[in-house]
Amino acid sequence: MIYLVRMVVSLPPSLSPEATQHLLAREKEYSQRLQRDGRWRELWRIVGEYANVSIFDVASHDELHELLSGLPLFPYMQISVTPLAAHPSRIVDE
Amino acid sequence: MIYLVRMVVSLPPSLSPEATQHLLAREKEYSQRLQRDGRWRELWRIVGEYANVSIFDVASHDELHELLSGLPLFPYMQISVTPLAAHPSRIVDE
Amino acid sequence: MIYLVRMVVSLPPSLSPEATQHLLAREKEYSQRLQRDGRWRELWRIVGEYANVSIFDVASHDELHELLSGLPLFPYMQISVTPLAAHPSRIVDE
Amino acid sequence: MIYLVRMVVSLPPSLSPEATQHLLAREKEYSQRLQRDGRWRELWRIVGEYANVSIFDVASHDELHELLSGLPLFPYMQISVTPLAAHPSRIVDE
Amino acid sequence: MIYLVRMVVSLPPSLSPEATQHLLAREKEYSQRLQRDGRWRELWRIVGEYANVSIFDVASHDELHELLSGLPLFPYMQISVTPLAAHPSRIVDE
Amino acid sequence: MIYLVRMVVSLPPSLSPEATQHLLAREKEYSQRLQRDGRWRELWRIVGEYANVSIFDVASHDELHELLSGLPLFPYMQISVTPLAAHPSRIVDE
Amino acid sequence: MIYLVRMVVSLPPSLSPEATQHLLAREKEYSQRLQRDGRWRELWRIVGEYANVSIFDVASHDELHELLSGLPLFPYMQISVTPLAAHPSRIVDE
Amino acid sequence: MIYLVRMVVSLPPSLSPEATQHLLAREKEYSQRLQRDGRWRELWRIVGEYANVSIFDVASHDELHELLSGLPLFPYMQISVTPLAAHPSRIVDE
Amino acid sequence: MIYLVRMVVSLPPSLSPEATQHLLAREKEYSQRLQRDGRWRELWRIVGEYANVSIFDVASHDELHELLSGLPLFPYMQISVTPLAAHPSRIVDE
Amino acid sequence: MIYLVRMVVSLPPSLSPEATQHLLAREKEYSQRLQRDGRWRELWRIVGEYANVSIFDVASHDELHELLSGLPLFPYMQISVTPLAAHPSRIVDE
Repeated sequence: MIYLVRMVVSLPPSLSPEATQHLLAREKEYSQRLQRDGRWRELWRIVGEYANVSIFDVASHDELHELLSGLPLFPYMQISVTPLAAHPSRIVDE
Repeated sequence: MIYLVRMVVSLPPSLSPEATQHLLAREKEYSQRLQRDGRWRELWRIVGEYANVSIFDVASHDELHELLSGLPLFPYMQISVTPLAAHPSRIVDE
Repeated sequence: MIYLVRMVVSLPPSLSPEATQHLLAREKEYSQRLQRDGRWRELWRIVGEYANVSIFDVASHDELHELLSGLPLFPYMQISVTPLAAHPSRIVDE
Repeated sequence: MIYLVRMVVSLPPSLSPEATQHLLAREKEYSQRLQRDGRWRELWRIVGEYANVSIFDVASHDELHELLSGLPLFPYMQISVTPLAAHPSRIVDE
Repeated sequence: MIYLVRMVVSLPPSLSPEATQHLLAREKEYSQRLQRDGRWRELWRIVGEYANVSIFDVASHDELHELLSGLPLFPYMQISVTPLAAHPSRIVDE
Repeated sequence: MIYLVRMVVSLPPSLSPEATQHLLAREKEYSQRLQRDGRWRELWRIVGEYANVSIFDVASHDELHELLSGLPLFPYMQISVTPLAAHPSRIVDE
Repeated sequence: MIYLVRMVVSLPPSLSPEATQHLLAREKEYSQRLQRDGRWRELWRIVGEYANVSIFDVASHDELHELLSGLPLFPYMQISVTPLAAHPSRIVDE
Repeated sequence: MIYLVRMVVSLPPSLSPEATQHLLAREKEYSQRLQRDGRWRELWRIVGEYANVSIFDVASHDELHELLSGLPLFPYMQISVTPLAAHPSRIVDE
Repeated sequence: MIYLVRMVVSLPPSLSPEATQHLLAREKEYSQRLQRDGRWRELWRIVGEYANVSIFDVASHDELHELLSGLPLFPYMQISVTPLAAHPSRIVDE
Repeated sequence: MIYLVRMVVSLPPSLSPEATQHLLAREKEYSQRLQRDGRWRELWRIVGEYANVSIFDVASHDELHELLSGLPLFPYMQISVTPLAAHPSRIVDE
């Protein structure tokens, strides 16, 4: 099932540069593992913001929440989720 | 270039069923032509709403505006556009 | 899968009392059929509003959108959908 | 009487991991006691957020406020409450 | 139980002066009957608006919704309801 | 003259438990003195929030601002004020 | 007592040019009478909008509501009222 | 003086195609006259919307309001105006 | 030219009482100098808030921004500015 | 391609005056380099705010995001971006 997900990051000023570096490296690795297994289908930067727009393809709400709450940056993100259904005008070979 | 586009439709109650039917048929054809030529890359229904989330891939702002303002339903839609950039964590073969 | 759904109704003033009566009778029948088969699990009136709060339990986003867009009152409602996941503190016999 | 309650948690960054652990353990125990006695009827995680949607069934506003303000996480939550009434289309054996 | 209720009126332009007059007379009578039996405890005009702020004292959510949805102006009002609990600093002879 | 006042409290995390205790005791005493002299006519807790809804009856805007800005919790509250006028449907012995 | 008042006008498209002309003439006369007697102290157009910002100086909430609800354009305006108090830094000969 | 102006158009459905055509022709001519005399410095379409972003350079608030309220589309637009000042980092030959 | 200005103050909790005292004294002096030279025409407290509503009369946007950004409290205020034009119904001896 | 960009700055109170001075000097130099090469076409201060309105002219979304995220003040700004298209009424020699 398809979900549009928007994540806005705001790192606390108290985070040291090293902790930040470490966190971002883990986030990248985590994100790429999910992209490779096909569950994180799209990932785009919103121009001018420390934020992304993503499309996830997972089996259930529970699975999506588990993936999102496991993000290393989860404590520092505001996330909104929109469930998406098939559109009748979409071309079928999708 | 990539744009996230959200379109919310509200048909005027004065529109006759025939006019509506005709309008929707033209909208579908218009949409599928753009999907086939690769500019309308994603098209999803927002669950529970008469609205869609789309991703467009076009050469310029002017081209996108021309495509959107040419939609048969354009006079009856509220559209918001978010420009998207490459994300540093995205896997490259995209 | 579980979804919180909020529906706000606003009937057009041009609707005749008979048409309204007929519409509401069909809406009630439609709603009760879905309650009986277990997919419309909760249905409450929001105090002071022509609106409801509902919980749906269906197999997919597509199924939910099909149910909601089939509501006789769908053209006259504003609907918002929130996907819900299991909560770790919930008692298990749910 | 039935209330829809939405709770959004934001823990202060100054809270130590131990204090957090202790707080969450108490919160879980408190929540499960209320679920067992039937007053906290539904409890769901909002997908992608550190937040829940709940349905309470209590005798009065005062009782609900006492329960909510007694939550160990109360100082760190933003709570909104919507009173719910019976819906005329609801099937009666509820 | 106590509820703060805010009602904002917007009469449709198509309503004739006679129908409006009749509606307002019925609304006033309805309102005063509820004030007399003690359930509509406070009723104030919001300065500069066609709106009121009220305090109701009724036995249940269902009773409040029945009262509000029975208002002759109900189809033309936007109503919001806030449940109120006892305040620990309130002087007790209330 | 009558004013609807809504106060939302948010205590800074740096406040010690003793300072908080002392502050709340002074707030209660201040509030009860104004209730006794008839100027703070209604005081209710908003269910689930650290906030209240109040009705004040004072001689002027200046008097109300003096009362509110003198609240011990004033530096930690967000306050909104709505002026209320007599309502034509109100029963007169008020 | 001083009130900041903001009025936004939206005339219904069904109003004939003659009715509009007549309404605006009455509005102007009404407004100027109140300016002359000193109760409508300031009156400014918001640049680019069919709206004004005004300052009223009247004896009570009731008097202000009577003035505002008597405006010929009242049924076509959205009005918001902010009560203003003396400012401690204001120079006294005001 | 410089103003950022945002105009959103919504034509009433009752406007005939001829009236619309005539209105838009007059709007274009009006707009181009102001561009030629240097007061309407920038004019851009917001992608996907029937709206524009403009920069005006005029001598006073009154002059800007006169220009804007004289737009043939003025009755069908929602306009917001932001006054702009010189920026200390701007290169001076501007 | 006339501007409506709304300033909302929020002092950082870290500011010492002495620094605050000193800041407020400078703010008062600054404000009164501008009132005396006629540029800060109106200054009112918003009832119940640490905020003011003001009317400025200055020669240009640049001059207003210079005055506002020079306020001792400027780093601790949120300011919004609305340009005001002459109103056709205003009595002329203003 | 043209983008309207709005940047709102909020410096953390913990930043020392020297660090701030250094940051602002770097920001100015960065901004002026981009103005000189023609990509940062317009730069204005919003009156009364620590914010600017800008117009950028760059080749792609990616280029704009690179420029904006490279701003020395980027971690302390909230940025919103609106893509702009040619307007049919614009005079062509632009």
